[in-house]
Amino acid sequence: MRSLTEYLWFNTPEKRDYINITDKVADTVRRSGIKEGMVLVSAMHITAGVYVNDAEDGLIHDIDEWLEKLAPFNLNYRHHRTGETNGDAHLKSLIIHHEVIVPITAGKIDFGPWQQIYYAEFDGQRRKRVVVKAMGE
Amino acid sequence: MRSLTEYLWFNTPEKRDYINITDKVADTVRRSGIKEGMVLVSAMHITAGVYVNDAEDGLIHDIDEWLEKLAPFNLNYRHHRTGETNGDAHLKSLIIHHEVIVPITAGKIDFGPWQQIYYAEFDGQRRKRVVVKAMGE
Amino acid sequence: MRSLTEYLWFNTPEKRDYINITDKVADTVRRSGIKEGMVLVSAMHITAGVYVNDAEDGLIHDIDEWLEKLAPFNLNYRHHRTGETNGDAHLKSLIIHHEVIVPITAGKIDFGPWQQIYYAEFDGQRRKRVVVKAMGE
Repeated sequence: MRSLTEYLWFNTPEKRDYINITDKVADTVRRSGIKEGMVLVSAMHITAGVYVNDAEDGLIHDIDEWLEKLAPFNLNYRHHRTGETNGDAHLKSLIIHHEVIVPITAGKIDFGPWQQIYYAEFDGQRRKRVVVKAMGE
Repeated sequence: MRSLTEYLWFNTPEKRDYINITDKVADTVRRSGIKEGMVLVSAMHITAGVYVNDAEDGLIHDIDEWLEKLAPFNLNYRHHRTGETNGDAHLKSLIIHHEVIVPITAGKIDFGPWQQIYYAEFDGQRRKRVVVKAMGE
Repeated sequence: MRSLTEYLWFNTPEKRDYINITDKVADTVRRSGIKEGMVLVSAMHITAGVYVNDAEDGLIHDIDEWLEKLAPFNLNYRHHRTGETNGDAHLKSLIIHHEVIVPITAGKIDFGPWQQIYYAEFDGQRRKRVVVKAMGE
């Protein structure tokens, strides 16, 4: 088994943001030379996520509103007794999930027509990281 | 590392449906000849999902009602400005998640007694696809 | 590709519990001798989950309250016609997800500073199991 591990850095100007990282992941896959296998794309922070869905601005707005409804910002989380104010960001990350595994077939990401990989930031304005690890032959 | 990649096609008569694909995934694992590894089962569409849970009709009905409560159909999603009406299907797919990784041990899916793999369709009545990729030795 | 498969057993005194299993997974990784690859950590039951987030007691309390809000215990699930009373545990497991894939880089779990692996029990007081499968070179 061969592998290549690379890291993506983010520092979003907004607290919440959604960034299409499909091309960056495809670059890692190409550099790895792997023909058959998978690439793991995983947030290294507990207030961010990685998901696969549509690159459509209206939908991204819907996703953001919906996450705020299911896991709202408020000041009353117990987690905030530590001095933090980002309890909602942890819960949003749990819904979206922090990682995806993407198949590599014939040297390329094996996606359907509309699938795109997104980094979802829920507590931004500081440096955060995603690991991209391609594995296979 | 060896691998075998196969695709499952679906065209459900209903808009929403839940299909047990455990036997089909087990077939791919058997054909791959892989003894130790994993099989990735991943929807190739952004309005469908793949999950592991119980093959019990009442529970499947509960899951469907619950998803409709958390991510309801309505006409007011911003995504619908594109002409689509399936905003809810995208959100349902995000909760359920679009993929699972299933361990292969001693040549078989290494599951507990009640685990089954389901394809969850949230915007059916058209041809859709799942990639099944077994990897290992 | 090399692999090592181990199983963790749980029998929690409470119906719901959240157990940090990071050290146990790290032990499997060390014993595997794998330098580059991944470790799959997957609940073998459909009323439990595995997730990655913070080892902070207040947050764990928040997660538990939040899951109860999104997937409440009640007696009216259709699943209960089978004689079960754990419909909510199935739904909680679907939100949290039953598995994670953790990267192994340079022989170690490749995590950010706050990431920890948790076993989430939603229907405890009986013996349950998690598979930990390290794969790589």
